[in-house]
Order: sequence, then C-alpha cells, then structure tokens
Amino acid sequence: MKKLHYGMVGGGKGAFIGNIHRQAIALDNLARLTAGSFSHDFSNTLEIGMDLEIPSDRLYPTYLEMAQKEAARKDRIDFVSIVTPNYLHYPIAKAFLNAGINVVCDKPLALRESEARELDELTIKNGLLFAVTYAYTGYPLVKQAREMVKRGDLGDIRFINAEYPQDWLLKQFESDGHKLKSWRANPSVAGISNCVGDIGTHIEYLVSYITGLKIKSLCARLDTFMEGHELDDNATIMLEFEGGAKGVYWTSQTAIGYDNGLKIRIFGSKGSLRWSQENPNYLVVSKLNSPTEIISRGRDDLYPKAQDYSRIPAGHPEGYIEAFANIYRAFTNALLKKSLGDIVTEEELDFPNARDGANGVRFVEKCVESSKKGAIWVEF
Amino acid sequence: MKKLHYGMVGGGKGAFIGNIHRQAIALDNLARLTAGSFSHDFSNTLEIGMDLEIPSDRLYPTYLEMAQKEAARKDRIDFVSIVTPNYLHYPIAKAFLNAGINVVCDKPLALRESEARELDELTIKNGLLFAVTYAYTGYPLVKQAREMVKRGDLGDIRFINAEYPQDWLLKQFESDGHKLKSWRANPSVAGISNCVGDIGTHIEYLVSYITGLKIKSLCARLDTFMEGHELDDNATIMLEFEGGAKGVYWTSQTAIGYDNGLKIRIFGSKGSLRWSQENPNYLVVSKLNSPTEIISRGRDDLYPKAQDYSRIPAGHPEGYIEAFANIYRAFTNALLKKSLGDIVTEEELDFPNARDGANGVRFVEKCVESSKKGAIWVEF
Amino acid sequence: MKKLHYGMVGGGKGAFIGNIHRQAIALDNLARLTAGSFSHDFSNTLEIGMDLEIPSDRLYPTYLEMAQKEAARKDRIDFVSIVTPNYLHYPIAKAFLNAGINVVCDKPLALRESEARELDELTIKNGLLFAVTYAYTGYPLVKQAREMVKRGDLGDIRFINAEYPQDWLLKQFESDGHKLKSWRANPSVAGISNCVGDIGTHIEYLVSYITGLKIKSLCARLDTFMEGHELDDNATIMLEFEGGAKGVYWTSQTAIGYDNGLKIRIFGSKGSLRWSQENPNYLVVSKLNSPTEIISRGRDDLYPKAQDYSRIPAGHPEGYIEAFANIYRAFTNALLKKSLGDIVTEEELDFPNARDGANGVRFVEKCVESSKKGAIWVEF
Amino acid sequence: MKKLHYGMVGGGKGAFIGNIHRQAIALDNLARLTAGSFSHDFSNTLEIGMDLEIPSDRLYPTYLEMAQKEAARKDRIDFVSIVTPNYLHYPIAKAFLNAGINVVCDKPLALRESEARELDELTIKNGLLFAVTYAYTGYPLVKQAREMVKRGDLGDIRFINAEYPQDWLLKQFESDGHKLKSWRANPSVAGISNCVGDIGTHIEYLVSYITGLKIKSLCARLDTFMEGHELDDNATIMLEFEGGAKGVYWTSQTAIGYDNGLKIRIFGSKGSLRWSQENPNYLVVSKLNSPTEIISRGRDDLYPKAQDYSRIPAGHPEGYIEAFANIYRAFTNALLKKSLGDIVTEEELDFPNARDGANGVRFVEKCVESSKKGAIWVEF
Repeated sequence: MKKLHYGMVGGGKGAFIGNIHRQAIALDNLARLTAGSFSHDFSNTLEIGMDLEIPSDRLYPTYLEMAQKEAARKDRIDFVSIVTPNYLHYPIAKAFLNAGINVVCDKPLALRESEARELDELTIKNGLLFAVTYAYTGYPLVKQAREMVKRGDLGDIRFINAEYPQDWLLKQFESDGHKLKSWRANPSVAGISNCVGDIGTHIEYLVSYITGLKIKSLCARLDTFMEGHELDDNATIMLEFEGGAKGVYWTSQTAIGYDNGLKIRIFGSKGSLRWSQENPNYLVVSKLNSPTEIISRGRDDLYPKAQDYSRIPAGHPEGYIEAFANIYRAFTNALLKKSLGDIVTEEELDFPNARDGANGVRFVEKCVESSKKGAIWVEF
Repeated sequence: MKKLHYGMVGGGKGAFIGNIHRQAIALDNLARLTAGSFSHDFSNTLEIGMDLEIPSDRLYPTYLEMAQKEAARKDRIDFVSIVTPNYLHYPIAKAFLNAGINVVCDKPLALRESEARELDELTIKNGLLFAVTYAYTGYPLVKQAREMVKRGDLGDIRFINAEYPQDWLLKQFESDGHKLKSWRANPSVAGISNCVGDIGTHIEYLVSYITGLKIKSLCARLDTFMEGHELDDNATIMLEFEGGAKGVYWTSQTAIGYDNGLKIRIFGSKGSLRWSQENPNYLVVSKLNSPTEIISRGRDDLYPKAQDYSRIPAGHPEGYIEAFANIYRAFTNALLKKSLGDIVTEEELDFPNARDGANGVRFVEKCVESSKKGAIWVEF
Repeated sequence: MKKLHYGMVGGGKGAFIGNIHRQAIALDNLARLTAGSFSHDFSNTLEIGMDLEIPSDRLYPTYLEMAQKEAARKDRIDFVSIVTPNYLHYPIAKAFLNAGINVVCDKPLALRESEARELDELTIKNGLLFAVTYAYTGYPLVKQAREMVKRGDLGDIRFINAEYPQDWLLKQFESDGHKLKSWRANPSVAGISNCVGDIGTHIEYLVSYITGLKIKSLCARLDTFMEGHELDDNATIMLEFEGGAKGVYWTSQTAIGYDNGLKIRIFGSKGSLRWSQENPNYLVVSKLNSPTEIISRGRDDLYPKAQDYSRIPAGHPEGYIEAFANIYRAFTNALLKKSLGDIVTEEELDFPNARDGANGVRFVEKCVESSKKGAIWVEF
Repeated sequence: MKKLHYGMVGGGKGAFIGNIHRQAIALDNLARLTAGSFSHDFSNTLEIGMDLEIPSDRLYPTYLEMAQKEAARKDRIDFVSIVTPNYLHYPIAKAFLNAGINVVCDKPLALRESEARELDELTIKNGLLFAVTYAYTGYPLVKQAREMVKRGDLGDIRFINAEYPQDWLLKQFESDGHKLKSWRANPSVAGISNCVGDIGTHIEYLVSYITGLKIKSLCARLDTFMEGHELDDNATIMLEFEGGAKGVYWTSQTAIGYDNGLKIRIFGSKGSLRWSQENPNYLVVSKLNSPTEIISRGRDDLYPKAQDYSRIPAGHPEGYIEAFANIYRAFTNALLKKSLGDIVTEEELDFPNARDGANGVRFVEKCVESSKKGAIWVEF
C-alpha cells in the first residue's frame, strides 16, 4: 500500500502531545514523518529532527518557510500535524491550507469562532481534508455507541448526562502555581476559558459525534475555585437540543480524586448507554425490561463500523494511543482514497473536521457569554 | 430498658411502605405497635390489626378518633407513624400534634411549605418531637461523610454533584400507564411535582445533612418525557449555596438502567468523597496527592458518631431497612431520654425533623417556580 | 395468621450472633420470643429476659431445665434457637429434639460428624424440623442462581471456583492475640479446624445448595500463617464432584484487604454465573456469544422461587439480616404449615437441615484428613 | 540516539501476533524493521516486505538463509523477532544465536525444557541478549507491584492467588471445532498442553516476576471439558514456594464470560495487592488497619522503576500494546547500552530472558506430569 508522508509543526523536546501524535501515527505505519518545524528554537528542531531521521533540508526554522518550501516540492508532505500551543493553531493551519497541504490540528482549533470558520471555508475551497484531534471519539466503543443511536437501538434520545472531571490542574496549581498562572490562567495564551476550553469541548464533541444532536440553547456557569486563578476551573452547563432532548454537562479541573473522568450517559425512550473513557473497552447498555448488558470489545458483536476500529482480541485493553491512532487512521485512509481519485463517502470521512472544531470554539464562546451574563440561557 | 409504644396511620394491606416502617422499628425492638388506623376501610384495619396482635379497642376507624382516644388514655402511644398518601400527611400530623402525641411522618411532609412550617411550629409549641423519614441519611457511611465534612477533612466545600436516577416509573408507565396517570400524574394527589417531589427531595436533604450548606439560589428545569404525563419525570437543578459553594443535581424516573441510583459527590479544597446508596457500606475518599481510599464499614475506623449506627461486622452488608431503622433508633432514643426528664442534646436529635421536612417542600416549590419561569435563577 | 413462639439458648449480653437471630426473626414478625436460657450465668439470662419482656417463669438457668419444662407446657415454644459456642450445639440440640421441640441451630452443627448425623436421625425419628443457619443461602440472588442451574440455563456444570477470604482474624490476632489463642486457636473449643470450619463450610454448603453437586473426592491443604497459631487460617481445596464437575475453593482469615469476601463462580457448558456476598443484590450471568448481563433484584425478572424472597424494590439494598431472616422465614412457614396438618413439600423445606449440617462437618473432617496426610486426594 | 535495526521471522499476512510486535516496536521508534522471512510462502514474505518498505535483498525465503546472510552483512540486524508457531521457536532461535544475532522470541520458548535450556546456554556462551515476550509484565503497575514486594511493603509473602480465565477458545470450538482440533488440540503442533502452555505460563512468569519466589513443588489437575478435545482447556494448580509461601493458580479457556482475565492477588504479613490485566492502570493495595487504596498510574507516586514505564498522564488508559512495547523498550535499551560498550546492570536487564522462558516450559512439563499421575504433588 502507498505510504503517506507527513510533517509536524510543534512537538519539540519536552512537548508531550507531539510525541503522542507521532506514536499514534507510527502504530499503524500509515504515514512517515519526513519534515518538521518542531520548535521556535531551531536547534531544538534540528536535534529532534535528527533523532527522527529526517533529512536536514526538510527541517525548517519557521512554519511559514516549511509551508512554502514543502508546497514547492514534488515529494511534498501529504499532510501536516499541528501540535503547538492553542493560540498558534489558526495562523499555522491557515498557512498550510493556503499552501494546498492537508491539515491535522490539535483542539481547540482556534481562539475565536470566526477564525475556525475561516479555516473550514478554506479547507472546502481548496479541496483539502482537515482533521481536529478530538481523540476520544476514536475508541471503538464510542463508534459502537454512535451506531446504536443511529440505528434507533435506544429509541428517541431524551436526556444526556456527560461529565469530565480531573484533578491534575489543582495538583499542579498547589505545587507550582506561579508557572501555571503565567500559562493556563493567562487569557492571552489560553483563550477566554480554561476548563470549558480545554476539556469541556471534548464533552461537546463526543455528544455531538455519538448522538448527532445540535445544541439549541444553553445555560452555563463557569466557576473559579483556585484562589488567584483568573479563568474557570469548573463548569456546569444545562442544554437544550434541537428536537427536544435535554442535557447537563459538568467539567472540572479541581475534582480531587478524578484522573481523566470523561463519561457519557445517553437516555432514550427504549434504552440507555453509558461509556467511560477510563474503562474504554466496555459499553454498558440497558433496555427497558431487560437486564443491563456489558458489551465487551472483541468478545461481543459490534456493528461493523465499530468493529473495524478494534485491533486486538477481547480483554487485551486498547487505550488512549490506539484511540488517537484511529483518528489518524480514518484521516489517512480518506486521504489515500482521495489521492487515488476515488470518491470518499461521508461515512469514510469518519474524523472530526474543521467544522466540528469551529463548533467547539462556538461552544466555549457561548458558555462564557452565558456565564458572564449570570448563567442565563443563550441561543446557540 | 423501658419500651415505647407506637401507633400507625396508614400501612394497611398492600401498602408497601407501612410494612417497611414496621420492620425497621421491629429490628431494634425499641417500640411495640399497640394502636392503629391502617386504612379508611375499617375492615382492612381490623384484619391487619388482628394479624399484628393489637387489642381491638385500639383499632380505630379514623385517624381523628385515634388521636383523640389515644390522647385520653393513660397508656397512650408514645408516638404515631404516619405512612399515608402524601396529601394526608399534613392533616393527620396536625391532629396528633394537637393531641400532644409525638410524630414520625413519611416525606414529603406536606404539599405546601406553609403547612409544613405550621407543623414545625406546632411541634415546638407543644414540646414534642417530630421525625421525617428521609431514610437514606440513616446509613452509617452517610453519618461518616457528615462527620468528615464537619471536621474539615475535605477543606472548604466547593462543589457538589448529586444525582438520583431511577427507571421504575417508566416501566410502570409502559405496563400500566392508566393507573399511573390517575395517581402519580395527578397533581391533586401527587402535588405540584412528581420527580423532584418524590426523589429530588432526598438529594436536597442528603446534601443538607452531610454538608450543612444552605441553598442561596437555584435554577431548575423540570422535564416531562413520558407522553401524556402531566408532571415532571426528570429534572436538572443548578445551585448556589450560601458561602459560595456550587452544585448540580440531576434526578430522573425515566433513566433506563437505573434502579435507585442516589449518589453524592462532594468536592472540597483538600479532598473529596463519593457515596452511592446502592453500595452503601463503602465510602470513597480522595485527598490531594494521596491514593484514593475505600472506607469500609466495619473494617475501617469510623468516627464514633458513625460507628454507633453500624450493626454488624465488615462485609456483611447492611441495607435499606437497617438505614430506615437508624432513623427510628435516633428518634426513639431521644424520646426515651426526654421521657426520663433528661436533656436531649442537639447532637442526639440526629434525625430529620419538621423543619427539614418544610425545607424539602420549599425546595420543590422553588424548583417548580424556576422551571415555570423558563429555568431561571430564583432566590431560595 | 397464627404466630409462632420460640425460645433461645445462648445470646446473652455481649453475644453478637444471638442478637442477629432475634433481629432476623423480628423482621418478619413470624415468631415471638417467649422463653430463654441466654447464659450459663443466670443473672445475665434474667437481665436479658426482662429487657425482652419474657415472663420470668420462662427464663431458665440451664438448657436442660428449659427443654424439660417447656416440653411440659401446653403453650410451649414451637422451636428453639441455639446460638451458643460451637461445642455446645450438639448436646443442646439433642436435649430439645428429645423433648419433642423443633430446632434452629448455628453452624457448625457439631464438632464431629457422628454427632451431627445423630441429630439428623433424631429429627427424622421424632418427626421434627431442624434448620442450620447457613445464612448466605437466604439471599434472593442465591435462590435465583439455584433455579438457573436446576433449569439448565448454564448447561452442564463443569467447574466451580469459590472463595471466602477475610482479614478480621488477623487484625484481632495482631491486637489481642492472647485472647484469640485461648479461643479460636484452641482445638478443644474451636474443633479441629478454624478457617475451614468457620467459613470454608459456608462455601461447601453454598455450592451444594446452588448446584446440587455432591463431592466425590478432595485434596486440601490447610495453612497456618499466623505465628504461634495452632489451627488453620488459610486453606486451598481442589475437588471432584460426582458426575465429573471439578472445582477449587480458597478460604482465608489472613487475606488482608478482604472483609467477608464470599464469592462463587459457576461455569457450565452454556453459560456461567458469578455472585458475591458483599454485593448480594446482583447476579452476573454470561452466556456463550451474548453480552454479559447484570441481573438486579427487583428490577429484573427472577424465577418465582427467588422473587418470593425479595422484600423491597430494586436499588434498595437488602443485606445480611434480611438473608438471615429468609432462612427463618422458610423454616417458620414450613412449621406453620406442618402445624396445620398440611403436607410440606420438598420445595417448601427450603432451608439448610441437619443433614446439610452433618455434611458440613464431614467436609471439615475430610479437609483436615487430606491436609494431614500431605494434601493428598481423599474420597468423600 | 542511535537506531537499532531488526528482522522478523514469521508475522506474514493474517498472522495477528506479528503485527502486534511491529506496532509495539514502532511505538517507541527504537528500532526499524529492515529484514524479514515472514512466511514459508516466499510470495507472502515479498508482499508483506514491500508493504513494510524493506529492501528486496533482505527478504528471505527461509530463516536459515536469513540468519546466515544477515550475519554476513556489515549493516546486519541488531536483533531478530521470532513470531512463528510454537514448535518453530527453538530451531529458529538457535539458528540466529549461532549466527551471533540477539533474539526476541514469543512464548512458549520451546516445546521441551531441554531445548529452552540449550537456548539459554547458547545466549550466554555467545554473549548475546535474549528476550521472551511475556508481555503482561510490561505494565507499569506490574513493575510497581514488583518494587513493593522487593522493598517489603507487604511484609513476608504468604499466599498467592492468581488466575487466567478466558472463553474465546470455547467460542471458537463451538463455531469452528474442526479447524481448532487440527491445531490447538493437536499435541504435535501445540505441545503437551494447551491451556497451561498457552496461558498458565503467563501466570507462572507474572508471579515469579513480581515476587521473585521459586516454586518448590506443585499439584496440578488439567481438565478437558470440550468434548472430543485432546488437550487441557482448564487447570487448577496448588503450589508451594521455597521459603514457605503457598499459592493456587487457576487457568481456563472455557470460562464463559471471561475475555482475558489474568489477575493476581498477593498476600503478605503486612499487606496485600491485587492487579487485573483487564484494568491494568490501577493497583489495589491493602495494609492491615488501613483503608484499601487504589493506586492510579499517573496520578499517584510510583517507585521510579515503575514510573519510567508510564507514558501518558493519569486517566488516559495505557493498554496491551504499550505493555508489549515496554518489553521491547527494556530489551532495546539494554542492547543499545551494550553496543556502546557500557556495563548493563542486572536491573537494566528488565525483560524476561531465556532462563525465564525455560522455567515456563518446565512449569508446563511439571503440571502435566502431576496431572497424569493423578494430580499428586511433584517436586519442581
């Protein structure tokens, strides 16, 4: 099979998430890293680049130079992975889209919705593909949940209760508050929201991905519990969806005892499902008048769409990196098919795109707007 | 030890909850049932009364006659248990208080806050004791949670997430909707709320009991998912407490897959705790920078206040009836002490009283008010 | 309904288990305590007796006097509950059987199998009923498990893995070893085995009750981990059953972290089930090629035999005392029916009897025999 | 950092485990696949080889040719991964060891202990490194467990209860028994044992790795529950370790409801630990007189040795492939260090070696011997 080549912006020494992206891509051996601008410090880029065996002429001091020079090459990269701090996502993605290069970008896609929409339009205009790495939707059981909702296994969706509590920010705040304040608590770097922006958006996309529901209005209260912290570290959001379903989201970075507790519960007229990111290989399904079932990846029959993303036999846990890799797998498969001139169906575009990314930014903006006005209802 | 005697109003043949009360009282052998008006159908009362070996002259056709005649006896009952449908709680409790007889009453205490407050005032005026059977606060681990908060083990309380989902109403609605509509869905019988009134109040009192926090304002949305149902069967409530803590409650009777999922999570500046009614013998406690701990009733050291309510060794589950009995235990112990002329301390009055019952009714009214106005914030 | 009357031997002040028996009987109000010899210290008996409102002429200094005098009364007790230390079970039960009085007795039924068989024969000869309080078989989900095996839901039973680890003995040993040695470690009081005798027998009966399988041979190794302790505190037992099924049991009183972890897993050719005493309201059932199911008492359909023992709605936990009460419920129901001259069917004799008790003693003897010979296989 | 190069024998089209090895190695980018003999069908090797971008002169029709030709190259592979059917492990490993090439080999290392010992001796004689991929010991929490035992956190180890139940073989047997019989049930291919050989050995090594205990004697019963199946599909093993600790292992391929339930519980005089492969990011630790603790990878402090193997933050599950990769990580790190002429310490050789593999084969032989003699005790 043809191998893709990709470049990376960000992900230099000490940058955790860049390595996750590289591991995720390597897992399926679908693309090879052949260009990079890993840091604003070029010596850092050179060091990382050599370790990754990238030819030195494809290590670039700036992302702009990288976009231009790669665009000019015959053997140019098929896509770029952008894994920089949030405020740089927009200009970098724009540069590569303008250069005609497909993009994978971390979330949040941008600090302002307008910028994110611009990226979406640019993607469409230039006939490119754009993925935003909402990694949690890569888990096979999340795909299964989506199929179940789609096929009506739960009946009409009535209520959604989703949450995402963590405590690591509080731990870090207690141990190294000063550094944290200069970064996470700094709106010019982190944007207008910390907790909703960083993890609340994962809830928003996960719900949207599984249920297809669109938010009609919401009422959000953002809290700041850590003293001297400027941005939110906890939030409660009530929602109404188009069509009448209701929901409540809770997200927190000060919930002592929670590691990374993303959890979703969906209730319909015929049944319900529950999935927890920390135990991702199982899906709990209840139907009216039947015992609750534990669906196990690998052991139980999944819908083909979900089964395709399962790699290893039942009881051999698949984790976060595998989920992450599944986002890349869908993206690179679509890219490969497109590069061969084949039609890529809607179903095959099974990854979060720039429009999804823009919706996430809108979600943050609406939550902040609601909260600032006193936690009142705002139209979405 | 002196034995108390009690009477019962309600709890005739087929009345589930009356039997629970009788079982709970019998468990500790603290009081003997010696009078009753179990049904508006006197033959039902006679039948039950004979089975319970109650002398026939203490079986009464009406609660009014029972209150008057018992008040006139030298060997009159020490307290009455009221286990009738909700709309009768107020007049019956009033009749017994006026007759100078202590009262234990099911929740909700009344359909209107004003009535509940009147009962509270009458109790105080007549120097009596009044218990409302919010049974879930009888569990030893709930007592432990309360002590931990009181002693500052969690630091300042910041956020509370509590929920109470069930699905039995939906099951019953599907199988026998007509009967249900005439009762649960009938505001003149059930009051202004179904789900918040029936189970939301348990959350409200549980949080109040454990944390001592007072609600400052709330924003509630009551949903009706079952078609043709008049009252709420699902509700989400955002809260602000005096002193700055925040919270969110969710309660549902249409959450397929949930039996009786009352669960509370309390987050403070130093630690958190989690307790679930369906697994009531354990308390999950997390402190910052320490592994999460599972506190087991019987195995681990509890505060004395909580330990006193534990009956059997670790790993031998104590359940709902035992919790229920603990409410009666505290009430009868206080009554016994009072009857001996001893001072009963605030700490010994460790049972939900009429004021707590009135706050519960207020909570329902405020939730309905908020929801009717469009789920806006209302002062409590 | 006619009320039964019972007497009790043992269960004086400070005797934990006597109170459990009284609470269990009181729960269903099926029998009233009207006679007793609670202690070898008669003043203790008098004190307890007065507190329990027993007429003074039915408080006896010795069990022998009690058996004789009660036998002579017209209004004599219908049955006696024996809750003394183990070595007294046999002589006391024999005295009451000889007096023509039905018996409920704690386990182990006797210190020697021959004595236990004698009690069984005496029971049959005198046309009486005898129950041994293997309380864990009173849980509704254990009844459900039994029905499922009987009806073939699991296919042919192939393998059983059951365990019963605790750590309280170790805790007590560390804190008060001297007292423990004089009692639990003293073969003349505790019998030939501590751990297998005390809790291993619960496994043996639970497996027998659910599956109906008879042990053909076993290979047991009894360990003594606590230094200076004479008897076993841990044991592993491999078994072969008649018909070809196999099994392994593990029981321990030194398994740090375990409260009272009785757990059984049964594997058949078509399915399996798993039940844990510490979470007794649920049964986990797996069938080949189907998702694993969680059967919840109250929510899901149980077989009628099991459903009859369920008291309260789903999600309201039933615990140990309720299970205990179910043993008494079956026993008193059979006694009532018998006293009315009705035929009591095999199915209605749904409680552990003297034969079951004798099998338990045999199990202990065989385990000790195997272990002493070097953990070799012995015929059962 | 210098990159290693490796070759692979086995792992052609449709061979599941070969791909796992490649994914695991790719994850850390520590070695590049540059040679291979993936199948006895050379066209299969060529196809896979091209897809993996291996130069055609390093694709070999036989492992023998591969060993000889690679040994002759200057840029020869640093190690070979052997992922063939079990009966080929020995001759292939021998060929590469004789060619002076380091080896990673799947388990079981050989069908006979003598062969495995020979490989171990050859490794030592030739100054090479040899790893056997007992992958489950790669999990960080397994490393943590090992450190805890080593440092005496649990006191003296007294008892070990370990199990490994699955049901997939039964599922496959029911759906495609014929194929299964020709392979898994065929002693000439599978060796003398199916269940103990395939998964029981994982228990044996896991216990050995964590506790360092050596088996002194064992008593094993191997069962065959699937009709018409020749080899064992279930086994119970009682053990005594040098120094006095005891244990029991259970392993099954017919335990309906179990996916891949490898679980270990270790009890010492001061504490216990429990770890389950299906939920591998947590370790349950109990100490006498303290609440049970849940140690979470990433959230809680691990010993440095364990922490080094943790890749991603708390609550982002690491799974089977990551554990597998950790075996390769330790092996390649040691190889790199050795290739630089540095001393590799005992601690740095943190991977299962040929001696461990030989012990595993011995374990299988001893279990079969014991069982054949009637499940009697045999010296190890």
